[in-house]
Amino acid sequence: MREAKSRYEIFRQKTHIIIYGTNTVAGRLFDLILLGLILLSVLLVMLETVEGFDIKYHNQLVLLEWIITAFFSIEYILRIICIDKPKRYILSFYGIIDLIAILPMYLSYFFASSHLFVIIRALRLLRLFKILNHPHFSGQSQQLRKSLIASRGKIVAFMYFVLISCILIGSLMYVVEGKESGFTSIPISIYWCIVTLTTVGFGDITPITPLGQFIASLVMIMGYGIIAVPTGIVTAEIAKSEYNRGRESKRHHCMSCGKEDHSENAKFCHHCGNELDENS
Amino acid sequence: MREAKSRYEIFRQKTHIIIYGTNTVAGRLFDLILLGLILLSVLLVMLETVEGFDIKYHNQLVLLEWIITAFFSIEYILRIICIDKPKRYILSFYGIIDLIAILPMYLSYFFASSHLFVIIRALRLLRLFKILNHPHFSGQSQQLRKSLIASRGKIVAFMYFVLISCILIGSLMYVVEGKESGFTSIPISIYWCIVTLTTVGFGDITPITPLGQFIASLVMIMGYGIIAVPTGIVTAEIAKSEYNRGRESKRHHCMSCGKEDHSENAKFCHHCGNELDENS
Amino acid sequence: MREAKSRYEIFRQKTHIIIYGTNTVAGRLFDLILLGLILLSVLLVMLETVEGFDIKYHNQLVLLEWIITAFFSIEYILRIICIDKPKRYILSFYGIIDLIAILPMYLSYFFASSHLFVIIRALRLLRLFKILNHPHFSGQSQQLRKSLIASRGKIVAFMYFVLISCILIGSLMYVVEGKESGFTSIPISIYWCIVTLTTVGFGDITPITPLGQFIASLVMIMGYGIIAVPTGIVTAEIAKSEYNRGRESKRHHCMSCGKEDHSENAKFCHHCGNELDENS
Amino acid sequence: MREAKSRYEIFRQKTHIIIYGTNTVAGRLFDLILLGLILLSVLLVMLETVEGFDIKYHNQLVLLEWIITAFFSIEYILRIICIDKPKRYILSFYGIIDLIAILPMYLSYFFASSHLFVIIRALRLLRLFKILNHPHFSGQSQQLRKSLIASRGKIVAFMYFVLISCILIGSLMYVVEGKESGFTSIPISIYWCIVTLTTVGFGDITPITPLGQFIASLVMIMGYGIIAVPTGIVTAEIAKSEYNRGRESKRHHCMSCGKEDHSENAKFCHHCGNELDENS
Repeated sequence: MREAKSRYEIFRQKTHIIIYGTNTVAGRLFDLILLGLILLSVLLVMLETVEGFDIKYHNQLVLLEWIITAFFSIEYILRIICIDKPKRYILSFYGIIDLIAILPMYLSYFFASSHLFVIIRALRLLRLFKILNHPHFSGQSQQLRKSLIASRGKIVAFMYFVLISCILIGSLMYVVEGKESGFTSIPISIYWCIVTLTTVGFGDITPITPLGQFIASLVMIMGYGIIAVPTGIVTAEIAKSEYNRGRESKRHHCMSCGKEDHSENAKFCHHCGNELDENS
Repeated sequence: MREAKSRYEIFRQKTHIIIYGTNTVAGRLFDLILLGLILLSVLLVMLETVEGFDIKYHNQLVLLEWIITAFFSIEYILRIICIDKPKRYILSFYGIIDLIAILPMYLSYFFASSHLFVIIRALRLLRLFKILNHPHFSGQSQQLRKSLIASRGKIVAFMYFVLISCILIGSLMYVVEGKESGFTSIPISIYWCIVTLTTVGFGDITPITPLGQFIASLVMIMGYGIIAVPTGIVTAEIAKSEYNRGRESKRHHCMSCGKEDHSENAKFCHHCGNELDENS
Repeated sequence: MREAKSRYEIFRQKTHIIIYGTNTVAGRLFDLILLGLILLSVLLVMLETVEGFDIKYHNQLVLLEWIITAFFSIEYILRIICIDKPKRYILSFYGIIDLIAILPMYLSYFFASSHLFVIIRALRLLRLFKILNHPHFSGQSQQLRKSLIASRGKIVAFMYFVLISCILIGSLMYVVEGKESGFTSIPISIYWCIVTLTTVGFGDITPITPLGQFIASLVMIMGYGIIAVPTGIVTAEIAKSEYNRGRESKRHHCMSCGKEDHSENAKFCHHCGNELDENS
Repeated sequence: MREAKSRYEIFRQKTHIIIYGTNTVAGRLFDLILLGLILLSVLLVMLETVEGFDIKYHNQLVLLEWIITAFFSIEYILRIICIDKPKRYILSFYGIIDLIAILPMYLSYFFASSHLFVIIRALRLLRLFKILNHPHFSGQSQQLRKSLIASRGKIVAFMYFVLISCILIGSLMYVVEGKESGFTSIPISIYWCIVTLTTVGFGDITPITPLGQFIASLVMIMGYGIIAVPTGIVTAEIAKSEYNRGRESKRHHCMSCGKEDHSENAKFCHHCGNELDENS
C-alpha cells in the first residue's frame, strides 16, 4: 500500500514537471503540443461556421473536436491531481479559463447553441505568455504593462471627455441631418459620431446636407487631432520608464554600506557618508 | 423670528455641505444620485428618438423626464439659496449649464421642437470631473490640460496649413474628377479631401479617373504622414511636463532660507549663499 | 519738379508703411482687410460651383469677383511701386503668388475654363503667417519646420519602403482577387493597397475571396503598426529640439570672455580658463 | 595567351568598377540607367494589366519587356563574371532578387501565367538604398532599423494580444449579428474586427443590430486608443537612440590612453587614472 502511494507520488511529481515545468525537454514538448492543439481547436470552431466547409466535413470536424476536448479534460484533471494546492489552481485566472474551455463542448450535448462558446478556448492562447517566460521578453512585457497602468488615469479622463463630446455631437447631427440620411435616432447618431471621430469611417451612414457635412468635417479634424492625446500620454510614460531603466543601470553603489539610489552627481553616500567611487 | 432665521441658516449650511461638499457620506451620496439621474435623463432623451421604443413607452418616458426635471429644478434653486454669493454661481460655467439643463423641458410646453435640447444635459456629466476631485486624478488632468495649452500655438499653425491644403486639393479634385464621380462642387470636394486626409474614408464619394485616384493616393500618404505632426507636438509637450515634474520632486531645498528652485548641480543657495545639502 | 518727386517719395514711403508694415494701426487694418478679401474671394469661387447657388446669384458673384480682382491688381501695382527693389518682390514666393492670384480672372476673359484657377488665391492665405509675425508664434512655427526638415531623410527612406511594399502587395492582390472584385488592373490594386495601408479604407474596392481578405488583414495590421514610424521620427525630433531649447536658456556664460556654449557641468570656461559662476 | 588573359583581366576590372562602384562618373551613370530601366519595367507590367492600354500597344509592350530582360540578363552575367567570389553574389539577397527578376520572362515562354511574376522586379528597386550610400542617409536609415529591431519584442507581444482580442470579438460579433448583416462566418467576423480595430473601416460589412453597433463602438474606441501603444514603443526607442547619439558626440576622450566611454561627470580616466580634460 505504501509502495503504491509512493509510486503515485512519483507519477505526480513527474507529471508536475511535464505539465507545469518549462525547463525539461518533455515539459517544453508538452507546452508546444498544448499550444498546437489550442490553435487547432480554435481553427476548427472557425471553420465550422464557414458554410461550404461545414457541409462537406461536418463529421470529421465534430470528431476532431471531441478528441481535443477529451485531451483538454484529461489535462485539466492531471493539473488538479499533480499540484499541491488544487483549489488555488482551480480558482486562478488560467484555472477558470481551462474549465470554461472544456465545459461548452459537454454542454452542447444538452443545449445546441452553447456549442459556439468553444471559441472561448482562444483565451487559452494567453498561455503563450506563460510559456515564453524568457526573462528578456517578459521584462519588456512587464515594462509595457506598467507604463499603461501609470497612464491609466489620464486616459480615462480623456475617454470620458471624448464620450461626452460624442453624445453632444451625435444629438446635434440627429437634429441637423434628420431621418432621411440614416441618422434615425440619437443612439445611431452617436454610433456614427464614434465611427467618424475614431477615423474608422464605415460609410454606412454619411451626412448629406451641407451643414451636416460641415459638422462632420469638424468632427474628423478633431478626431485626427486628438488621437495625439492618448499617443502622447502612453509615449511619455514609456519614454520615462525607459529613461529610468537606463539610469538604474548606471546608479552609484556605495562601497561601504551598499546603498544604491544615489543621485547621478552625488559624491558622498547619503546613508553612511563615505565617499562614493565616481565610476562605480 | 431670529430663531427661524437661525434655523434657516442651519438648513442652508447643511444643504451646502450636502450639495457642494464631497467629503461627508451624505455629500458623496448626493453626488452619486445626481450623476445617476443625469445619466438616466440623457438615456431617456436618446431612447425617445428610437422609433419602436417611443411608441410603446411614450407616456412613461415623458413622466420620468418631468420627474427628473422637477428634481433638477429643486436642486438648482437649493444651489442658489445655500450659497453665499448666488450671482457668482449663476454666472459660472456650471451654473449656466445647470440652468440650460432644465429650461428646454419647460419651454417644450410651448414649443414642440425645443424638447430635444434636453440632450444638453449631457454637459452636466462634466460635473464628474468636479466630483472626482481626487488629488492624483485631478493633478494628472491638470497636467494634461497644461500640455495641450502649451502646444496650442503649434497645433493652430498646423491646422491652418492643413486647411489651406484641403482647399487647394479639393479644388483640384473638382476640376479633375468632375460631376460624374460625385465631386459636384468645390465645397463637396473639400469635404471629400478632409474625409480622406484625416484617414476617415467614408467612401460616399470616391475618385474614378486614374488621375483622380493618383492624387487621392498622394493625399492619403500625406494624411498618413502628417498625423505625426500633432502627435509629435503633444507628446513632446507631455514628456517635457513629465520631465519637469520629475525634476521638481528632486529639487534642492536650502536649509537656511527655504528657497527651492536651485539648478541640479548648485552647491550654494543662489539666494542666501549658504552651502546646500547635496542630497536634500 | 523736385517737389513733385519728393511728394511722390512721401506717398511711396507712406504706402510702404501701410502695405508692408504691421506695426502701425493703418498697417494692421490694411492686413486685416486684405485677409478678409482673400477669404471672401476664395469663398466666392467655392459658391460659384454650387449649382443652385450659382444660378440664383450668378451676376452678383461675377461682379464681386471683378471688384476683388481690381483691388488685388491695384495692391499688386502699389507693392511694386513703393518697394526699393521691385524685382526682388516680383520674383519672391509671395510676389509670384500675388501675380498668379489676379491673372486667371483676366485670362478668363479669353478662355472660359481658366476662370477656376482663381482658387489659387487660397495660396494667398499663407500671408497669414507673415501677418501674424508675433515672435512667440513664429518662433514655434520655425521650430516645427526645423524638426520636420531634420527628420526628412528618415521619412523619405520610410516612404520609399512603403511605396515598394504597395507595388508588390498591389500586384499580389491583382493576381489573388482578379477582375470580379474590382481589382481590374495592377495600378488600381496599388491604389487599393495605399487606401488600405494608410487606414483610409474607402470601401469602393474590397477583397471577396478568403485569401484576399487574409492578405488585406495583414496589410491593415502592417499599416496600423508602421504609422508608429513617421510619428516616432517626428516626435523624437521635436522632443530633441524642445530639449535643446530648454538647455540653451540655462547655459553658463563666462563672466570674463562672454563665451556661452559650456557644457552643463563645466566649472572653468573652456576658452579663457576663468572659473565659471555656478548659477549664472 | 597570357596577354589575352591580361586583357580579359583589365576588362573584368573595368566592368567591376562600372557595375559595383559608385564613385566614378561611369559607375554613377550605370546605376542611374539601371534604376531607370527597373522603374520602366515595373511600369510596363503595370500598364499591361490596364485593359484599354494593353489592347492598343500589346506588341510594343512585349518588345520593350524582352529588351529590358535581355539587358538585365547581360548585367546578371557580367556581375557574375567580374566579381572574385561569384558564389557569394549569387547566394546574396540582391543576387537572388536579380535572378528572380529575369527568370519569369523566360519561363513565360513555357507557362503563360508566370509572366506576371515579372512584377517581382519591383524588389530590385531596393537597390536604391545601395546606390544612395551617402553616409548621412544610410546612417539615419541604420539608426531607424536599430530602433525598430530594439522594439521588436514589445511589438510582437502587443500584436499577439491584439490578435487574440480579434478572435474573441469576431466570434462574439458572429453570434450577435448573424448571417443577415454579412457576418456569415467567424473568419469573416474576425476580418471585420481587424478592419474596424485598425480604423480602416471599409464598410463592406457593418453591424445593424443595436447590440452589434454598441460592441463595434467599443472596438473602435479600443482601436483608437491602443494605436498609442506601438507608436509609444517606437517613439521611445527612436528618442533613446537619438539621445545616445547626442551623448556619444560629447563623450570625454582620455588624453593619455585614448579610452572614450567615460561617463559625463567622470574626472579621471577609468582605465589609466589620468585626469580627464573637462571639455575635450
